[in-house]
Amino acid sequence: MSARFITFEGGEGAGKSTMVARARGWLEAHGHEVVQSREPGGTPLAERIRAIVLDHDHESFDPVAELLLVFAARAQHLAELIRPSLAAGKTVLCDRFTDATWAYQGAGRDGPLELIGQLEQAVHGDLQPDLTILLDVPVETGMRRMAGRGEADRIEQESMAFFERVRRNYLERAAAAPERFAVVDAGAGLEAVWRSVEGVLERRLAT
Amino acid sequence: MSARFITFEGGEGAGKSTMVARARGWLEAHGHEVVQSREPGGTPLAERIRAIVLDHDHESFDPVAELLLVFAARAQHLAELIRPSLAAGKTVLCDRFTDATWAYQGAGRDGPLELIGQLEQAVHGDLQPDLTILLDVPVETGMRRMAGRGEADRIEQESMAFFERVRRNYLERAAAAPERFAVVDAGAGLEAVWRSVEGVLERRLAT
Ligand SMILES: Nc1ncnc2c1ncn2[C@@H]1O[C@H](COP(=O)(O)OP(=O)(O)OP(=O)(O)O)[C@@H](O)[C@H]1O
Ligand SMILES: Nc1ncnc2c1ncn2[C@@H]1O[C@H](COP(=O)(O)OP(=O)(O)OP(=O)(O)O)[C@@H](O)[C@H]1O
Ligand SMILES: [Mg+2]
Ligand SMILES: [Mg+2]
Repeated sequence: MSARFITFEGGEGAGKSTMVARARGWLEAHGHEVVQSREPGGTPLAERIRAIVLDHDHESFDPVAELLLVFAARAQHLAELIRPSLAAGKTVLCDRFTDATWAYQGAGRDGPLELIGQLEQAVHGDLQPDLTILLDVPVETGMRRMAGRGEADRIEQESMAFFERVRRNYLERAAAAPERFAVVDAGAGLEAVWRSVEGVLERRLAT
Repeated sequence: MSARFITFEGGEGAGKSTMVARARGWLEAHGHEVVQSREPGGTPLAERIRAIVLDHDHESFDPVAELLLVFAARAQHLAELIRPSLAAGKTVLCDRFTDATWAYQGAGRDGPLELIGQLEQAVHGDLQPDLTILLDVPVETGMRRMAGRGEADRIEQESMAFFERVRRNYLERAAAAPERFAVVDAGAGLEAVWRSVEGVLERRLAT
């Protein structure tokens, strides 16, 4: 069993949280000790940062400030939870990680790519996910799935064009690093998507 | 009148807050429209970040997370308050700025200097203070002045060796950029220190 740091990525309503929960059950049934987490957040301090990032009460939010908050939460998450868990032999499942920063703060917001690269290098240049499952879904489909939920948070209020840039960036990054990414067609029904995810786990954990 | 972005620096109890308040009165009496602020903080969002940074309830605080929070607050402060105020012709007085990051997160914590440089460049590579007044005081003197105050915050609880590194770093930075810095002996009594600060303002604002 090689892959132990596994991240789930994708746009709004792609099914990340649903699939992380299923993957956890499957991994535990296969003998893994699993730590399930999410970003931004994952520790008390990082969740306080998350609350600032997702709050919609800010008059104006500087894009670089947002980017630095996301990486501040990540540095804390890595130090307090992810690294110690991996060191203890656990499997870490994370709902979003740095690929989401490239997609949202980078491509979505047309943000400072050089700075994102410097921050990624400084915060976890030594550690990348072993496996990233990209749940790819048309933006409209994801939106439709979200429609039933309560008020949208600050990021969910972005435009369709923003989410199209996010989706395209995820797919480009997956194409550029096929040894790390597995792209799953997440536009299918829930059971079909899960069978795809399960297949990825079986194949990637066996090697 | 040239200098309009003026920062005050120095260790704990050096007299920054006292001298910023006096400088404000003096500048207003000399016809400046003054915006007085402080770091970390200065806007509602940045003050929320400050509260996280200074809270002592964290079990462990990753040093890179701390550094990124400080620069996140700064990016917001610059975008929302400092840059618009300077653009409107106001004089901005700030109690601490990036020199404090070099001194505390850099020298004090022996932190990642390359990353601090990258962050400074990304956040305000185009904008430095016109004048930085360094209130230099022996660590013990500053501590004695603080002794009467309430419970120490997370940073005030550091060791003497930490604060000695902070002081030395401030002095080195001032020596390396004499056109920007003015070093004031802040170990003297309050009125004597103010006369020195006033003299600096007179000289530096006249040019
Ligand atoms: N394949 C699917 N087909 C139909 N509905 C789905 C599918 N996957 C998830 N859903 C439903 O869509 C909604 C969003 O799913 P989920 O919360 O897992 O997405 P998410 O990617 O975590 O969203 P967010 O970006 O907001 O965190 C939920 O109501 C979920 O039950
Ligand atoms: N030159 C001085 N001589 C004696 N006492 C002083 C002098 N300057 C300030 N003080 C007093 O020392 C205390 C600390 O001053 P002040 O709060 O201005 O320092 P500070 O540099 O802002 O501290 P901090 O780093 O905690 O923000 C206050 O009680 C203040 O009245
Ligand atoms: Mg989710
Ligand atoms: Mg003060």
